[in-house]
Amino acid sequence: MFNNIVIYGKYNGIQSWELIDKAIHFLQSRHKTVFLDAFSCADFPIDRYGVKLVHRDEDLDNMDLAIVVGGDGTLLDVARSIVTKHIPVIGINLGRLGFLTDISPSVMIQSLSDIINGEYDHEKRNLLEVTIIKNNKVLFNQVAFNDVVLHKNDSPRMVEFETFIDNRFLSSQRSDGLIVATPTGSTAYALSAGGPILDPTMDVFSLVSINPHTMSNRPLVISGQSEVMIRPHENCEGNASIICDGQVTFHITADHKTFIKRHANLLTMIHPKGHDHLQLLRAKLNWGQKL
Amino acid sequence: MFNNIVIYGKYNGIQSWELIDKAIHFLQSRHKTVFLDAFSCADFPIDRYGVKLVHRDEDLDNMDLAIVVGGDGTLLDVARSIVTKHIPVIGINLGRLGFLTDISPSVMIQSLSDIINGEYDHEKRNLLEVTIIKNNKVLFNQVAFNDVVLHKNDSPRMVEFETFIDNRFLSSQRSDGLIVATPTGSTAYALSAGGPILDPTMDVFSLVSINPHTMSNRPLVISGQSEVMIRPHENCEGNASIICDGQVTFHITADHKTFIKRHANLLTMIHPKGHDHLQLLRAKLNWGQKL
Amino acid sequence: MFNNIVIYGKYNGIQSWELIDKAIHFLQSRHKTVFLDAFSCADFPIDRYGVKLVHRDEDLDNMDLAIVVGGDGTLLDVARSIVTKHIPVIGINLGRLGFLTDISPSVMIQSLSDIINGEYDHEKRNLLEVTIIKNNKVLFNQVAFNDVVLHKNDSPRMVEFETFIDNRFLSSQRSDGLIVATPTGSTAYALSAGGPILDPTMDVFSLVSINPHTMSNRPLVISGQSEVMIRPHENCEGNASIICDGQVTFHITADHKTFIKRHANLLTMIHPKGHDHLQLLRAKLNWGQKL
Amino acid sequence: MFNNIVIYGKYNGIQSWELIDKAIHFLQSRHKTVFLDAFSCADFPIDRYGVKLVHRDEDLDNMDLAIVVGGDGTLLDVARSIVTKHIPVIGINLGRLGFLTDISPSVMIQSLSDIINGEYDHEKRNLLEVTIIKNNKVLFNQVAFNDVVLHKNDSPRMVEFETFIDNRFLSSQRSDGLIVATPTGSTAYALSAGGPILDPTMDVFSLVSINPHTMSNRPLVISGQSEVMIRPHENCEGNASIICDGQVTFHITADHKTFIKRHANLLTMIHPKGHDHLQLLRAKLNWGQKL
Repeated sequence: MFNNIVIYGKYNGIQSWELIDKAIHFLQSRHKTVFLDAFSCADFPIDRYGVKLVHRDEDLDNMDLAIVVGGDGTLLDVARSIVTKHIPVIGINLGRLGFLTDISPSVMIQSLSDIINGEYDHEKRNLLEVTIIKNNKVLFNQVAFNDVVLHKNDSPRMVEFETFIDNRFLSSQRSDGLIVATPTGSTAYALSAGGPILDPTMDVFSLVSINPHTMSNRPLVISGQSEVMIRPHENCEGNASIICDGQVTFHITADHKTFIKRHANLLTMIHPKGHDHLQLLRAKLNWGQKL
Repeated sequence: MFNNIVIYGKYNGIQSWELIDKAIHFLQSRHKTVFLDAFSCADFPIDRYGVKLVHRDEDLDNMDLAIVVGGDGTLLDVARSIVTKHIPVIGINLGRLGFLTDISPSVMIQSLSDIINGEYDHEKRNLLEVTIIKNNKVLFNQVAFNDVVLHKNDSPRMVEFETFIDNRFLSSQRSDGLIVATPTGSTAYALSAGGPILDPTMDVFSLVSINPHTMSNRPLVISGQSEVMIRPHENCEGNASIICDGQVTFHITADHKTFIKRHANLLTMIHPKGHDHLQLLRAKLNWGQKL
Repeated sequence: MFNNIVIYGKYNGIQSWELIDKAIHFLQSRHKTVFLDAFSCADFPIDRYGVKLVHRDEDLDNMDLAIVVGGDGTLLDVARSIVTKHIPVIGINLGRLGFLTDISPSVMIQSLSDIINGEYDHEKRNLLEVTIIKNNKVLFNQVAFNDVVLHKNDSPRMVEFETFIDNRFLSSQRSDGLIVATPTGSTAYALSAGGPILDPTMDVFSLVSINPHTMSNRPLVISGQSEVMIRPHENCEGNASIICDGQVTFHITADHKTFIKRHANLLTMIHPKGHDHLQLLRAKLNWGQKL
Repeated sequence: MFNNIVIYGKYNGIQSWELIDKAIHFLQSRHKTVFLDAFSCADFPIDRYGVKLVHRDEDLDNMDLAIVVGGDGTLLDVARSIVTKHIPVIGINLGRLGFLTDISPSVMIQSLSDIINGEYDHEKRNLLEVTIIKNNKVLFNQVAFNDVVLHKNDSPRMVEFETFIDNRFLSSQRSDGLIVATPTGSTAYALSAGGPILDPTMDVFSLVSINPHTMSNRPLVISGQSEVMIRPHENCEGNASIICDGQVTFHITADHKTFIKRHANLLTMIHPKGHDHLQLLRAKLNWGQKL
């Protein structure tokens, strides 16, 4: 089933090479066709392996599986680039357990072996699509797997903006910004800002204000079917940005409307059999173990 | 459609009488058959009106609509008692806007008129069912509309307990307790304890720890399809309670397992046309109005 | 200088015996006169050692040093009982590092050796004195080293009360209670309830509400010279308690006024030379180490 | 006593003119010599009044009183500029009650009359002095009345830095930044970031992390005698700023050490007799009134 397999490494990341080397050898020994992402693995010595580079803008339609070797940041980047291709994803961490890259190097070969033998769990996760419009023109259209953040720019001052949900006015606030997070992103920046942890099986989003001036402001969890619209007030022109997954930034003013809703596609994450998200939470967050 | 209508008042609440009087007169003028809840309206001078008392343990199957005149606490109590009967509910507040009793006295007659003319919005809300088991025997079975709370008893010490979700271990914690809240309850006690606000259209629950000893503890939002199980440790025997909606209490020890899941039925809430939950949040929580 | 030394163990705590045995041997070898606390060491086989038991209500005036072998809870208890005697205190933990019992068993003898040789750091910490008055009569007078807590009793309902600072009205609140904490107690229950960490060299107190209904409620830090007064409203009669250090409880009603202020005496804590409170915070709270 | 009085207005703030006009007339009628701040009142039609402009860099030594007509931001700005001159300050708000500008226009004349008659309360407040050093050279030296903030720059990424207190290592953290706040600033940005409210009579500071990645991070309150030093890690070069009172910014890199300690001078705030800070807190924060 998983015949054409593409591997993504950490960008500029010679750290990934050893693991990628091991993964290629193993997959080729099982008669899989292996591809490497041209962007993140540009410097990898591919000639030795007889693998092909694949560019992100090329047709990835024939890929059956994506293996990401890196950290959660690498996987976020890959997720955004392949979400329209319906390719399931596996995350191998480079040493430190990630929320998304949950397979550690020491069990990589065993996990890959099980997975290509059909022994795996999978889950589908939602993503966000953000569209920024000015004068009825779409200026920006991006995907986010963790979060879309409205943030004040390099400025000591708060930003002031209005938020709407499904065309209904939610509130006007002054703050450092607002995080719209997926369940995947609920354990990232949104958690630092006081947001709740969302079970990743749910199709919901959280709205978490960043240092809101209004003291009764609280995190809000809304349906994945809802559309959020944010619009800065005129008094903060030029002083806000929209940031996707902490990786892609677009500057906005009071003339821009930012629409955030669920991306049409879900991303399939593949895990070793018996994967337990609660165990991952306990390990990453230092929660109490069973006595 | 709404022919048989039962009215509930505030328990021991002569404050409700004037509104109940007006409601009866209006509904009878529209040829509706009006009933009064025997428990909450025991002292109401029913003889003047030609209405019948209905007991809660009686068959309410013929009722088409329940009108609650009181505060949110009154509506919680009614919701628990009629959830199996599929009767839609309207909430009239006694003066202070409630999250559930959203119709103010001044517009009651107009709202009732619109509603019986078929002009209304409605929404379905989930509830919790809690079952406490000891030695394979069910000792307690209750419904909660806001929340099921595990709380230490009258004691200066924290309670220690384990939580499971869908038979998977979540964590062991020492704290003052744990709140399992519905979206309806997310603006009640769970909010005071730092929980997020949950849009009531979603079928989810929040788990909010009360003053947890572990500093990385955070509120968790889970699917309405999940079942929570809580079990105190042996070292806190006799020192915990399970409390439904702040109204019904059961003492537990380490021998009791408490199962909390969605009640099989949803409760239909009826609102005047154009009801806006976000507006209610703004009004109740003092959030920023539109500039 | 430290000639008469009294040792306190963990109550009912045979766990302390081995360490107490080692401490007695060492101190006697240095020609110190050793006493044992009669309450906590009642079952200790004192006959072997030629030490005397001292009762807490006896005159401790001749003691030069108190050594507490136990956990932080043990030291809290001892601190309350000797605060009027001006005896400096050392805390030996029974295995798990405490905020107050900061000397681990493995370095106990070395630490004691240094300390009786005059090689030590010391600091003075404030304590709270709570006085409960009804009809102009003092019904309760206690000391607290960590905190004085007003808490609702075994009840699903919040308690409602008014707080005054130096006879000025602060606020009326509905909540699960209020914590008045010393800097020492700021890393205990007050921290679970969202309070700040107070440097123990300061003479200040924090007021931390427990799950307050008012969403703009925030922790407040006041001068150690200020006096707090708390008074429950009439509508919560019989439903509140005053708790000192989580160890001593007194039930109050709307007829009781509870006055909380700094105890007249400070407690001197003795530490090994180079004691670093910030290091203790990092270790106990899992904060980021130096990179 | 208050013979030479200097008035500061809102910068570019024609809104202040009417109140300044009234104040001048009143003070002149009481034979006071009135001066106007040249910076904030540059466009004020001074010729009509026979008052003199005073520049901020000029000698203000003869001034007995400063009256600020504006918002809290205006008073912050003035406080920083006159702190070395030992001039007591009065704050008149332009319509919305401020924490610092606590005299409303409607009672301005009465308040000024009482104050110049010697009927007033006063309090002394601490300020911060921040010094930024690179290669043993002082590059920046400023005063802050509210807070000194280390903040990541216009960047989606967190900043990583180390904090020391009195030359002792506190912690290494990744976050959006750190707020060092005075009691005065504890109700400003530090409050939005989750910091405690500090009674302004105390000589203490709070350290409040902004969206810290470490979940056990908590606000810390330290003595006003302590010195804080912050140093970004090398991996965030060029990506942090030091901001005083949200008004003065300096960009720093890993080569800069930022020292923050109490300014040598205190600022005297003058209030109408009976001024009650707790009442101000209740009014500004919507806390529960007396029942």
